[in-house]
Amino acid sequence: MQQFDTYINQHQSEFLSELKTFCAQPSISATGEGIEAMAGLVREKMAGLGASVQKLEIGPADPPVVYASLGQGERTLLIYNHYDVQPVDPIELWDSPPFEPTEREGKIYGRGVSDNKGNLLYRIQAIRAWQETMGPLPFKINWFIEGSEETGSPNLEPFCLQHGELLKADGCLWEMGGVDEADRPMFTLGAKGLLYVELSVQVMNGDQHSALGTIAPDAVWRLVWALQTLKAPDETILLDGLWDHVAPLSDIDLELLRAIPFEEEKMMANMGISQWAGGVSGFEALKRHLFGPTCTINGIEGGYTGPGQKTVLPARAKAKVSFRLVPNLTPELVTNLLREHLDRRGFSDINIDILGGEHPGKTSATAHVVQAAIAAANEVYPDSPVIYPLTPGTGPVWPVAVAHGTPMVSFGASYPGQNLHAPNENIRLDDYFKALKMMGRFIREFGRK
Amino acid sequence: MQQFDTYINQHQSEFLSELKTFCAQPSISATGEGIEAMAGLVREKMAGLGASVQKLEIGPADPPVVYASLGQGERTLLIYNHYDVQPVDPIELWDSPPFEPTEREGKIYGRGVSDNKGNLLYRIQAIRAWQETMGPLPFKINWFIEGSEETGSPNLEPFCLQHGELLKADGCLWEMGGVDEADRPMFTLGAKGLLYVELSVQVMNGDQHSALGTIAPDAVWRLVWALQTLKAPDETILLDGLWDHVAPLSDIDLELLRAIPFEEEKMMANMGISQWAGGVSGFEALKRHLFGPTCTINGIEGGYTGPGQKTVLPARAKAKVSFRLVPNLTPELVTNLLREHLDRRGFSDINIDILGGEHPGKTSATAHVVQAAIAAANEVYPDSPVIYPLTPGTGPVWPVAVAHGTPMVSFGASYPGQNLHAPNENIRLDDYFKALKMMGRFIREFGRK
Repeated sequence: MQQFDTYINQHQSEFLSELKTFCAQPSISATGEGIEAMAGLVREKMAGLGASVQKLEIGPADPPVVYASLGQGERTLLIYNHYDVQPVDPIELWDSPPFEPTEREGKIYGRGVSDNKGNLLYRIQAIRAWQETMGPLPFKINWFIEGSEETGSPNLEPFCLQHGELLKADGCLWEMGGVDEADRPMFTLGAKGLLYVELSVQVMNGDQHSALGTIAPDAVWRLVWALQTLKAPDETILLDGLWDHVAPLSDIDLELLRAIPFEEEKMMANMGISQWAGGVSGFEALKRHLFGPTCTINGIEGGYTGPGQKTVLPARAKAKVSFRLVPNLTPELVTNLLREHLDRRGFSDINIDILGGEHPGKTSATAHVVQAAIAAANEVYPDSPVIYPLTPGTGPVWPVAVAHGTPMVSFGASYPGQNLHAPNENIRLDDYFKALKMMGRFIREFGRK
Repeated sequence: MQQFDTYINQHQSEFLSELKTFCAQPSISATGEGIEAMAGLVREKMAGLGASVQKLEIGPADPPVVYASLGQGERTLLIYNHYDVQPVDPIELWDSPPFEPTEREGKIYGRGVSDNKGNLLYRIQAIRAWQETMGPLPFKINWFIEGSEETGSPNLEPFCLQHGELLKADGCLWEMGGVDEADRPMFTLGAKGLLYVELSVQVMNGDQHSALGTIAPDAVWRLVWALQTLKAPDETILLDGLWDHVAPLSDIDLELLRAIPFEEEKMMANMGISQWAGGVSGFEALKRHLFGPTCTINGIEGGYTGPGQKTVLPARAKAKVSFRLVPNLTPELVTNLLREHLDRRGFSDINIDILGGEHPGKTSATAHVVQAAIAAANEVYPDSPVIYPLTPGTGPVWPVAVAHGTPMVSFGASYPGQNLHAPNENIRLDDYFKALKMMGRFIREFGRK
């Protein structure tokens, strides 16, 4: 890899200039600003690698997907990135304008530099460096670069499930990644799913005077009684049947978990709490955080909530409840369990509206794509990668990769000080060039017979 | 009482003209409109009876109380009325202007005609008729006519507790009353009290991403868990110690209860429900409605309540909770029970803010003032009065009367079609003159040795 590394070292300023050009182009999916122009820049870069490029329409009003195919070989790598960025507000907190990328103290600042333009561009540049120094790619790449990730990819799942042929691959490189507080590379092998519902109830045709609270029903009480059957004060989720479907942790999962740093004191101090909910701590808390499902009340509303007192007996109440889903829970399964759980307890009057659903997606650490990434990281970083078998958040890992039998891994150029989705988003140049060098080794390892 | 009745019959048009004058004067305590002018009209009427009249200041910004003393005798009767009225909105639903009292089909329409100007004026006119036909009053009357009843008499209680000498009496005639659906006179002998609190909790220094719902606390869950310890799904109030303080029903209470009509099917149909909360019905439901305390969630709010989904873990939540208080519960007692109940279960983090409190007040049916009213009613109405030992609603019965050892009764000129607090408020002329005649007999009976 000597020639590859030399090429990278010699092209640093060109690479940074390309990164600044990418970041100077607004591409805010929430408003549509610059989306088409950015998709054009991405298509240009892909064409420059010799790829055949298609523009895919996800939904009539959605930003287009740039879909690029390049390389030849027995194996196929799917890469998932996105070219859209978050809005810039509060703009007054930026030290330099968000779309004027600026270098300061070994960092480059600008909206999107970490999420996700840096992680998209180092991959492009590594492939170019490979082509210039190592020859043709040793496998085929199908690259799926969407433009609505920051607005929740609302129409991605049905599209992906209908177009498996575009996505099926031997491994998938996910959009983001970086190093942790101790500069160890962090890999993620999956994401939790989500079921987000609104529970609502109407107990009378209208509000009544609360003097009738003796014998007339109260919608808020009804909702509280239904909710309290779902989770105990010790944080145990009580939804009937849920735990029968939760996949046990494998020995590898447990081994990986034990290697994950967990700065719980610092996390708790930041939140202003002195212990975790449910009284767990240490390894148990980490295990629950990374591998546990949730049952969260995201919001609740009913009756009079203004200042002072109003003696009203509320006819209607509602709560937003969400479940983070771990393997093998699915939105459909948990919806059915919830309906049956409520009906079994006489709460058939509680209505369930589904507001969102996403399957969990998890890859085995023994997958070739993961092993290739580990081998690559070990050549570039002083520490071995910390591997997160599952992340607490949710993303479209399932429809893009896991639903098609494609294992995934995520690594990249970010770091904890990136100011994700916030003013002064930035990456460190050193991380960027390390990720570039790692990508070269990953290409070699993934292509290895 | 022949001369008394003749006087009334001969002065019907004069009496109605006076009633129209009273009702033509706006006196909206919520806005202050016409309050001073109305207080002036009331003082004039009282002076016309030969009363000595004082203007009492309850609070610096409150409408004044008209306090009138008249008559001589061993006994003292306290009369409580109010001269303020509700606002008139929605004004477009009135068939005649609210402050242009109008006679139609044996009824008189106008804001305040039922609540409470008719019930104030028939008493004034009955006393005048007594003086003209029967001679001097056989007892002393202290008449307390306030102007902020429709805004909840916010400063009345401390004033009353400090000025017992103005209120102490052998009996109290309460402001309102009338006949029921079957034209039976209805008496009420008391009102429930109220404790209205806001329960609030903050579990972290700010909202977090709901991916942390694995191990970080959720304020809405915390509140739901605390609330569900207060009332069971079968409607049993679980507040520790509450039932130890609830006075048992006397044999007289039970006897009176059995005589009270309860059109539960009609009530439920109006609300759009098919059974009462907790599955009670018939006499048990009526008993609970009139003599039971309540624990109502009047409102609840926490986290995200807008459209769609937001994956937030809420740091704060609050609920408005009220308890209707029966003898011998008090706001202070229930506040203490609630704090201890929550602390005992580990919910010391749930904050209690008191938004309002009122003691219950109940009079024995054997009190002289009640017996006098029964005897009077039996001479005027074909049916015996239906006596409500306690009403489900709340009013200042305790600070005005019961706290000073004064038993009370309430009877008057209203009927169920009065449109209380609504457009087209009205009374029936026939009810008005019956109330006038009954008042004459009540004067005789209350003064009887």
